[in-house]
Amino acid sequence: MANPRLNLDAFLFGGDYNPDQWLKYPDVLQEDLRLMTLSHTNAVSLGIFAWATLEPEEGKFNFDWMDERMDSLHKNGQKVILATPSGAKPNWMAYKYEEIRRVDSEGRREGQGGRHNHCMTSPVYREKVTQMNTLLAERYKDHPALLMWHISNEYGGYCYCDLCMAEFRSWLQKKYGTLDQLNESWWCNFWSHTFTDWSQVQSIDGTVNGMLVDWRRFMTEQVADFIEVECAPIRRISPDKPVTANFMTLFNDYDYWELAKRLDVISWDAYPQWHQHDDTHVAVSTAFVHDQYRAMKPDRPWLLMECTPSVTNWQAHCRPKRNDMHMLTGLQAVAHGSDAVLHFQFRKGRGSCEQHHGAFVDHTGDENNRVFREVTKLGKTLVDIKELIGVVEPASAAVVFDWPNRWAIDGAAGPRNANKDYEQTCIEWYRPLWEAGVATHIIDQTGDLSGYKLVIAPMSYMIRDGFADRVTKFVEEGGVFVTTYLSGWVDETTLAYTTGFPGPLRKLLGIWAEEMDILLDNTAQTILPDANALGLCQSYKCQHYAEIIHLEGAEAVAVYGEDYYSGQPAITVNNVGAGKAIFVASRSTGALTNDVVNNLISETGLQRAVEEIPKGVNVQKRGNALIAINLNSTLTPFDLDGNWTNLVDGAEVSNGLVMQPYGSAVLVPKR
Amino acid sequence: MANPRLNLDAFLFGGDYNPDQWLKYPDVLQEDLRLMTLSHTNAVSLGIFAWATLEPEEGKFNFDWMDERMDSLHKNGQKVILATPSGAKPNWMAYKYEEIRRVDSEGRREGQGGRHNHCMTSPVYREKVTQMNTLLAERYKDHPALLMWHISNEYGGYCYCDLCMAEFRSWLQKKYGTLDQLNESWWCNFWSHTFTDWSQVQSIDGTVNGMLVDWRRFMTEQVADFIEVECAPIRRISPDKPVTANFMTLFNDYDYWELAKRLDVISWDAYPQWHQHDDTHVAVSTAFVHDQYRAMKPDRPWLLMECTPSVTNWQAHCRPKRNDMHMLTGLQAVAHGSDAVLHFQFRKGRGSCEQHHGAFVDHTGDENNRVFREVTKLGKTLVDIKELIGVVEPASAAVVFDWPNRWAIDGAAGPRNANKDYEQTCIEWYRPLWEAGVATHIIDQTGDLSGYKLVIAPMSYMIRDGFADRVTKFVEEGGVFVTTYLSGWVDETTLAYTTGFPGPLRKLLGIWAEEMDILLDNTAQTILPDANALGLCQSYKCQHYAEIIHLEGAEAVAVYGEDYYSGQPAITVNNVGAGKAIFVASRSTGALTNDVVNNLISETGLQRAVEEIPKGVNVQKRGNALIAINLNSTLTPFDLDGNWTNLVDGAEVSNGLVMQPYGSAVLVPKR
Amino acid sequence: MANPRLNLDAFLFGGDYNPDQWLKYPDVLQEDLRLMTLSHTNAVSLGIFAWATLEPEEGKFNFDWMDERMDSLHKNGQKVILATPSGAKPNWMAYKYEEIRRVDSEGRREGQGGRHNHCMTSPVYREKVTQMNTLLAERYKDHPALLMWHISNEYGGYCYCDLCMAEFRSWLQKKYGTLDQLNESWWCNFWSHTFTDWSQVQSIDGTVNGMLVDWRRFMTEQVADFIEVECAPIRRISPDKPVTANFMTLFNDYDYWELAKRLDVISWDAYPQWHQHDDTHVAVSTAFVHDQYRAMKPDRPWLLMECTPSVTNWQAHCRPKRNDMHMLTGLQAVAHGSDAVLHFQFRKGRGSCEQHHGAFVDHTGDENNRVFREVTKLGKTLVDIKELIGVVEPASAAVVFDWPNRWAIDGAAGPRNANKDYEQTCIEWYRPLWEAGVATHIIDQTGDLSGYKLVIAPMSYMIRDGFADRVTKFVEEGGVFVTTYLSGWVDETTLAYTTGFPGPLRKLLGIWAEEMDILLDNTAQTILPDANALGLCQSYKCQHYAEIIHLEGAEAVAVYGEDYYSGQPAITVNNVGAGKAIFVASRSTGALTNDVVNNLISETGLQRAVEEIPKGVNVQKRGNALIAINLNSTLTPFDLDGNWTNLVDGAEVSNGLVMQPYGSAVLVPKR
Repeated sequence: MANPRLNLDAFLFGGDYNPDQWLKYPDVLQEDLRLMTLSHTNAVSLGIFAWATLEPEEGKFNFDWMDERMDSLHKNGQKVILATPSGAKPNWMAYKYEEIRRVDSEGRREGQGGRHNHCMTSPVYREKVTQMNTLLAERYKDHPALLMWHISNEYGGYCYCDLCMAEFRSWLQKKYGTLDQLNESWWCNFWSHTFTDWSQVQSIDGTVNGMLVDWRRFMTEQVADFIEVECAPIRRISPDKPVTANFMTLFNDYDYWELAKRLDVISWDAYPQWHQHDDTHVAVSTAFVHDQYRAMKPDRPWLLMECTPSVTNWQAHCRPKRNDMHMLTGLQAVAHGSDAVLHFQFRKGRGSCEQHHGAFVDHTGDENNRVFREVTKLGKTLVDIKELIGVVEPASAAVVFDWPNRWAIDGAAGPRNANKDYEQTCIEWYRPLWEAGVATHIIDQTGDLSGYKLVIAPMSYMIRDGFADRVTKFVEEGGVFVTTYLSGWVDETTLAYTTGFPGPLRKLLGIWAEEMDILLDNTAQTILPDANALGLCQSYKCQHYAEIIHLEGAEAVAVYGEDYYSGQPAITVNNVGAGKAIFVASRSTGALTNDVVNNLISETGLQRAVEEIPKGVNVQKRGNALIAINLNSTLTPFDLDGNWTNLVDGAEVSNGLVMQPYGSAVLVPKR
Repeated sequence: MANPRLNLDAFLFGGDYNPDQWLKYPDVLQEDLRLMTLSHTNAVSLGIFAWATLEPEEGKFNFDWMDERMDSLHKNGQKVILATPSGAKPNWMAYKYEEIRRVDSEGRREGQGGRHNHCMTSPVYREKVTQMNTLLAERYKDHPALLMWHISNEYGGYCYCDLCMAEFRSWLQKKYGTLDQLNESWWCNFWSHTFTDWSQVQSIDGTVNGMLVDWRRFMTEQVADFIEVECAPIRRISPDKPVTANFMTLFNDYDYWELAKRLDVISWDAYPQWHQHDDTHVAVSTAFVHDQYRAMKPDRPWLLMECTPSVTNWQAHCRPKRNDMHMLTGLQAVAHGSDAVLHFQFRKGRGSCEQHHGAFVDHTGDENNRVFREVTKLGKTLVDIKELIGVVEPASAAVVFDWPNRWAIDGAAGPRNANKDYEQTCIEWYRPLWEAGVATHIIDQTGDLSGYKLVIAPMSYMIRDGFADRVTKFVEEGGVFVTTYLSGWVDETTLAYTTGFPGPLRKLLGIWAEEMDILLDNTAQTILPDANALGLCQSYKCQHYAEIIHLEGAEAVAVYGEDYYSGQPAITVNNVGAGKAIFVASRSTGALTNDVVNNLISETGLQRAVEEIPKGVNVQKRGNALIAINLNSTLTPFDLDGNWTNLVDGAEVSNGLVMQPYGSAVLVPKR
Repeated sequence: MANPRLNLDAFLFGGDYNPDQWLKYPDVLQEDLRLMTLSHTNAVSLGIFAWATLEPEEGKFNFDWMDERMDSLHKNGQKVILATPSGAKPNWMAYKYEEIRRVDSEGRREGQGGRHNHCMTSPVYREKVTQMNTLLAERYKDHPALLMWHISNEYGGYCYCDLCMAEFRSWLQKKYGTLDQLNESWWCNFWSHTFTDWSQVQSIDGTVNGMLVDWRRFMTEQVADFIEVECAPIRRISPDKPVTANFMTLFNDYDYWELAKRLDVISWDAYPQWHQHDDTHVAVSTAFVHDQYRAMKPDRPWLLMECTPSVTNWQAHCRPKRNDMHMLTGLQAVAHGSDAVLHFQFRKGRGSCEQHHGAFVDHTGDENNRVFREVTKLGKTLVDIKELIGVVEPASAAVVFDWPNRWAIDGAAGPRNANKDYEQTCIEWYRPLWEAGVATHIIDQTGDLSGYKLVIAPMSYMIRDGFADRVTKFVEEGGVFVTTYLSGWVDETTLAYTTGFPGPLRKLLGIWAEEMDILLDNTAQTILPDANALGLCQSYKCQHYAEIIHLEGAEAVAVYGEDYYSGQPAITVNNVGAGKAIFVASRSTGALTNDVVNNLISETGLQRAVEEIPKGVNVQKRGNALIAINLNSTLTPFDLDGNWTNLVDGAEVSNGLVMQPYGSAVLVPKR
């Protein structure tokens, strides 16, 4: 794969543009151009849901309107991220070719409606997509407005139709070779689930976790394959333009790391729910996702493909962004490596589902409102900080968040079936790194660890092939590795290790986990540390999980304070080679993760963005710039050594600054 | 339509009578007559679920038992409200003609069971109903016991079968003419939902709000059409007898205003949940519905067709009515214009679903119990107040509660998806009128406004064709119009107005609504009024919705107290012609609605039933009578000027009275 | 039926053994034998899920592995409880014979997956089971390891396929004879549900409670019949070995009393949820079930067929048993008459659903862990107390818990639809008997009452045929009978009694129940007793239900304190013949049940295990042994007169003992 890059000279600013809603209103189309200019819009995503307009009847195509828009946008100064329209199949196709409509897990063929609901396997749909994408690529490959390709939209969901099940069987045959191997890997001989013919794989049995995880892997592969089908004509005809597909947070359905391999540029749609309960929590959760997508293609920036200019329309409470919060949202993405702040959508549609979703241009169709002003302010700022374009900040710390591991945890019956909270736990371990402004990657278990000093892999229940070896090598060569309770229980196929938990990490960690105590919600254990060990400076409350472990070479730096395993190790350190492997046997976030991680930041010499940061303010480094955001709704003094220029307002900063409520700053060394 | 009236000389008292449960027990049938006499029963609804008894096999009819009952009832002094039995199709029919059983939204044909579950479209069922109703009408049209016709029972629910979908397509073709118009109205070009052939309308897409609202309109039409089918033979053969169908509160499935047009008399089934949490809230909610049905045929009384003599059997907690609460329930209906207090049911059945639902006659079959005594007391009272029969109290105030608007609000994605509470908000605005005993109509947006002085239309999200014009004329001619946040957002097809919210009401209200802030549950904004304006005398807490508006001619009489729109208008008054148009931008009920509405009552000279009413007591006027109910569980003194006779107990009242717990009074000027 | 007994010389100790998971691992199989010996395992349940291994292809059988295991186990000293494998049908069968897979209540044929999901009616499955069971019986009938037969596993669930519905129709025809009788019994003439042809019974109508209860009765019969099919070859070929099937707590789907008739020995699977909220509540609930199974075959011990050695894998919070809690669990079963403590399972499987369920042998495969040690300690104790084997403790008290009554209550609409809590109420009335260590049976309404002094039948809503007569005779002959609110409302077919509630118990109880007040959750009535009556010594709070009753011969020993029925009887006693019948009109547990039952224990001369028991300790008598368990997590002094030997630790006990946290003791008179 050529893997072409974007070569930008400006941050991309703009968003989804759906003129197919407005073709009967030429005045509106004309006005769009004026408002784009006014708002500093320089890029739009075109045609995402346009299939019915591009091909209103089977084989009858209409590209005229798109030609016109491409030309007009070009003349007006906007680049086009051109979408393939597969995210929403047209009605005529859904009813003519029933196979395109999905079948749910109970065997029901869906009606037409909504979007993102085609069968990924359907040969007919693949043929239709190939035809459409070929026509688009041929027609627009050389158009001067064309910037890159936007494949489909927010792929999601599973289909259980006969075509998909047949593909699943083929996939399994390829993966396992023999039924014997399949039965062993899924442990089918229990409950008489033994398959004696491949044809018996006909529905997904939720009681066979190995099957469930493999089903999700297969669905990932099926979407990856669908992406390849989508991309084939594009890469053939328009090979110099990068391809992206917009992802969604930590979306459970597919392993995004696998999909990412098929794309040239990573992009995602971020809809943080500001002004609800705890904006700092929202900010760290968003940053976690940013840092995952940054890590997927670490040699290049990623793109914030969608965010809302003001409100969403689907939350229980769709709160407008307060003044400056939109600037904060955009600059947070930039701080973590995005070269774009794109939005859904440019102009509110008059009807249907997303009519009340925020947009650059409101139903009134003019610029005279707060939202347009806020948006424009951000557009202007992105112009002002253009020196950051393309800059990639290297990361020396990583947190491991892994899809198959997550699926294995979620699908497992026991040891706890409430509050498993894998995602949240990873975010909690990431939080001190984010608070310190340490450039961090969120990676999966397949990631190359060689460039990191610190790797934290909470709840590594499933150890994927090769991971234990890579971690061991990483530690031997001087890295610090942290993992927790519930690690090293099962292998890639979800078979439990018989060598004693934490399985292949047992030797590295120097401990053996005998039992798992499960704490009731709203109850806690206590962790009592040795003085001065690992930065632990107080007793800590822990909850949910408390693994009962024995030392096998490691040193206990903290012990449990209560119950029948009182005095047994709770946190251990094992010095291995030039590095160390740390095991935290119970769930304790906040004070404990803060103390441990901060200690490790210092110990491993990781670089903080700045040394002292006021509560509620977050600072990230990108190149020589510091990007600061204030999550407080109040004025917040921020002491900062040195002399800086704030590119957001052009102010010179020498004795620190006072950040506005929800204010942002992009500080570069004073010129 | 002839639209015949009831010409009653007594309040109807009695209820559903299902002797088809007891045909094997002649003693029971005989005893029924004695107990009817004893309880003052003068009317029964006969045959509601009798189809299986009337036609036990296809084409084999058995009317003998009904002949006998009609004759016996007549001889015993009871009038008969004769039901068509379509509310419960018999088993033989359900299985012989599968098309009669409904198909649910996921395409599954229902099994037989329950009731109220036939397809409204099925030609077979329409034919069967026509045959049955013809036979009933021919047989009983001249029976001296026959008072009126009771069409089916509590119509409800949707069917998604092929027959219904085909009719829906025809209905759409008639409504929209072209697919182009359909696509525009539903905004189908977004998400590629464009219909290119009518046949593509095959299932209801919940993401297309226009489609969803039209589906509900269509289902309303289909039921209205079914009612016409039911009524055709009756109106042809028995034209002098009025026709009713029993409605249910604010039942969401159909727009009752459309159904009402097909009926001669309005009736409904009221099951207020007394003794649960707040009886006053229950009372005002019930009164709201009463006043809606009063408004549907304002030239004539309506009928309380069902209530329970004691308990229901379907609530989580089926609490018996305390002493006198049943009297209160009945007299509250009379106070709001009912000429009947009818019940479900006369005698408890021994088995099946409603065996534990309250009835006049308990399983013991005799009169020796509290419930029978309470019922009989009410029966007697209705005799004593017969001078109120037929009296219609005119209303000068109206609250607008509109079905299509409600559907549009409920189906909209955003701006808030929790606690939309349209119904409840209408009731809260109605409450001060009810508390003051101001005769009020609950109308929909199609209502004639010319007779009112005050019209309150909360949350008029959808403005139906003609409504804005009628409101404007109403205000110009001196009326006072109140509306709130979330008004004037979309048109009849749910397309957003592009002229600035509140759309066609913008000029009338003299404001422009730029943004909607959404408050989290359990948080509040503050509304700070000008002194003396509009009766506003304190600061008010508001919640859920806070629309951010600008003055365009109106005067701000209150402003917001917090957040980024602090100081911006929260309540405005615009003087137009001889009247005024008031906009309340945020949700604030209780103190605020109380102060505003009471101010407007005085200002517009609306007539209070009495000037001072103690807390927990409600008084309504009907003709020259005051009907008072005490919702307190304690003795409550009620000061009242003048000399009155209390028809309930015959007492003379001169220095006011002390109301018993849950007591009622019907006061007429002393003779 | 021969009804053979077990003639044991040791408590059965061991559990489910599934070597079919490990056939590829001969070392594991060998190691199993060593670990069995080490843990005192003397019995295993073999082959429960082994169908796919026994018959991997249709007609191709493989018993070699089972032969080997039977021989090895025998040589190693373990007895085998040999299972029929019908609890988990193999994949090949599920797909070749679709009829075996169940159809759900909405008509969908299930996919293959899980277990316990075959159609009980399917002729194919019955044929397959007959063939398999014949082969097993023939092959192993004379094997020296064979102890008894274990039929299937945890039968459960309903099937709604055409085959089942056809059988249901036949069952109804046999039961009711005529449609007329059916219609009358189910009260079908209401809501036009009249059946005019048997073929119209095609789906279960949840609004017809009589149908719903009959459906459950039929499903019970269908499973009973299936059990007979399973047992036929076994009883023919291996008639001297007893047959059991493992039951589950108070499992709702089937009336276990009917199934019990088909079995020789009762066994059940107990998974008490220790260490969650209230261990005493868990202990009494478990004891209640123990005492039910003890009562099902009162002439012989029952078997604890499954429990977990440590954790389950399916609870929200799977808490490990604290030290000694497993001993407590096992000895509690022994205390209530079990001659076995068997477990699921011997060795943890590596994958699939139950991989994390506790087992004797952990994934590590060795004995070096706490769980194995705890298990072994119990195994040893069972050896030490072998003098208790076979001892049956007679019971003079009984609590009635009845399946059809429960179904009738649950399916009834009204008088209350939240917190009906029949099971819990029965347990609350049982609790004082358990606390006093009074040997008690939990029986159903069909039970013989002649051996008891005290019978408590709470919430006897449905009075099954003959029950009222038996109760009356019981009281006349000197027994004390207690029942409560909601009793005597309906007959066997759920038809309400027309003779006044409590129906056929009205005369015996000497009261008439006129009305039922339903109290809102979190509100209470008050019960005020006469001084000294029935042990009632204070005022009591009551909730949920408050029946309003009148005396007809009984004496009121307590009255209500509030509301419109204040002063009316709340608790009554009626002296009849040599005994008395007590009615408790409202729900009041804790203090009230404690006072009443303790008073009746004394009055009827029931034998307490010991007179004074410390809080949290429970003592039951079995033969001349006292078995004491300490549910406190703290040391608990237990004063006890006399000189005893504690078989658990061999200690001599003369001035009482101090019980360890979760400690147990088996005390026999000092030798």
